[in-house]
Amino acid sequence: MLSARNRLTGEVVEVQTGDVTTEVTIDVNDETVTAVITRESAEDLEIEEGMELTAVVKATDVMVRSD
Amino acid sequence: MLSARNRLTGEVVEVQTGDVTTEVTIDVNDETVTAVITRESAEDLEIEEGMELTAVVKATDVMVRSD
Amino acid sequence: MLSARNRLTGEVVEVQTGDVTTEVTIDVNDETVTAVITRESAEDLEIEEGMELTAVVKATDVMVRSD
Amino acid sequence: MLSARNRLTGEVVEVQTGDVTTEVTIDVNDETVTAVITRESAEDLEIEEGMELTAVVKATDVMVRSD
Amino acid sequence: MLSARNRLTGEVVEVQTGDVTTEVTIDVNDETVTAVITRESAEDLEIEEGMELTAVVKATDVMVRSD
Amino acid sequence: MLSARNRLTGEVVEVQTGDVTTEVTIDVNDETVTAVITRESAEDLEIEEGMELTAVVKATDVMVRSD
Repeated sequence: MLSARNRLTGEVVEVQTGDVTTEVTIDVNDETVTAVITRESAEDLEIEEGMELTAVVKATDVMVRSD
Repeated sequence: MLSARNRLTGEVVEVQTGDVTTEVTIDVNDETVTAVITRESAEDLEIEEGMELTAVVKATDVMVRSD
Repeated sequence: MLSARNRLTGEVVEVQTGDVTTEVTIDVNDETVTAVITRESAEDLEIEEGMELTAVVKATDVMVRSD
Repeated sequence: MLSARNRLTGEVVEVQTGDVTTEVTIDVNDETVTAVITRESAEDLEIEEGMELTAVVKATDVMVRSD
Repeated sequence: MLSARNRLTGEVVEVQTGDVTTEVTIDVNDETVTAVITRESAEDLEIEEGMELTAVVKATDVMVRSD
Repeated sequence: MLSARNRLTGEVVEVQTGDVTTEVTIDVNDETVTAVITRESAEDLEIEEGMELTAVVKATDVMVRSD
């Protein structure tokens, strides 16, 4: 069990592979969630479009905005 | 316009005020998103239960998990 | 499987509980690793001195220093 | 003196240079610690395999996991 | 209104575009502030040398050092 | 030498001590920079109003905003 508070599960809709980092875009209930992870992690998890993936975020990394 | 990629809008369902930090919990499409911000920010934004708030997260702070 | 690259396992040697956040100190091969997580996470994981715990860190959150 | 709580010293075992970021892997007591820093920082510190380097992490960036 | 406490406004003096991330350097009162953001964000904000830009940092991401 | 790109030196104008974390406000060329660090770090650095202190931020933790 991981301490990180936030988990949002969805389907990978785009993978953009760089030399060191990879950008992964996930569709979560019609909202887009974007993660930048290491290319090695993306390869270890065998991330590809269409697979299910959960975005995980530590609560101290979340800001809020009022409109 | 802010560079942070991720924005998730919902309703504040819980506010827990500490001495330096405040924990804000937002219901986003029946998913729970939790933010830890400074107490001063929470006061400046006049955060309270029931108001609409957007969680904002930088893409480099998002991890992913496969099951 | 989580994308975060860094995992360091050790024994909890100190838990300091605050109102919103909790500081957890882990002994990893005689090095001290300190985490600040939400108090709720600490309670959910039932963290207490003497238990084994793994510190997890995203690679983009690691700096380096040369001497 | 820097406020960041966590320092782990070891030997650089791999350097992967990208266009903007560089990934540095350090062997710390047979554990692997991976950092993603800017390429400019890597060049300023003249990071190369075999040199000693200390990984530095702020406590609020450390999560914990129980098994 | 965004909860992030720190805003530093200046002029963009350098833009280094990578495959996934872009490094933006801003001159703030003769101090240099460097941001690594996604290339997509840099394109969406149409960042280029000479434009005015504000660096934004969450307080939990700021360390301090005494000399 | 530390890899973190951003350093902003100024005078401490406010210290707010919590149970686990401490908020430190620094005046940097008439801009306010706010850091949330562990209370232990604040005690180790003997932070108090009027002393000179440098805010340190990793480039991947900096966002940008255009107006």
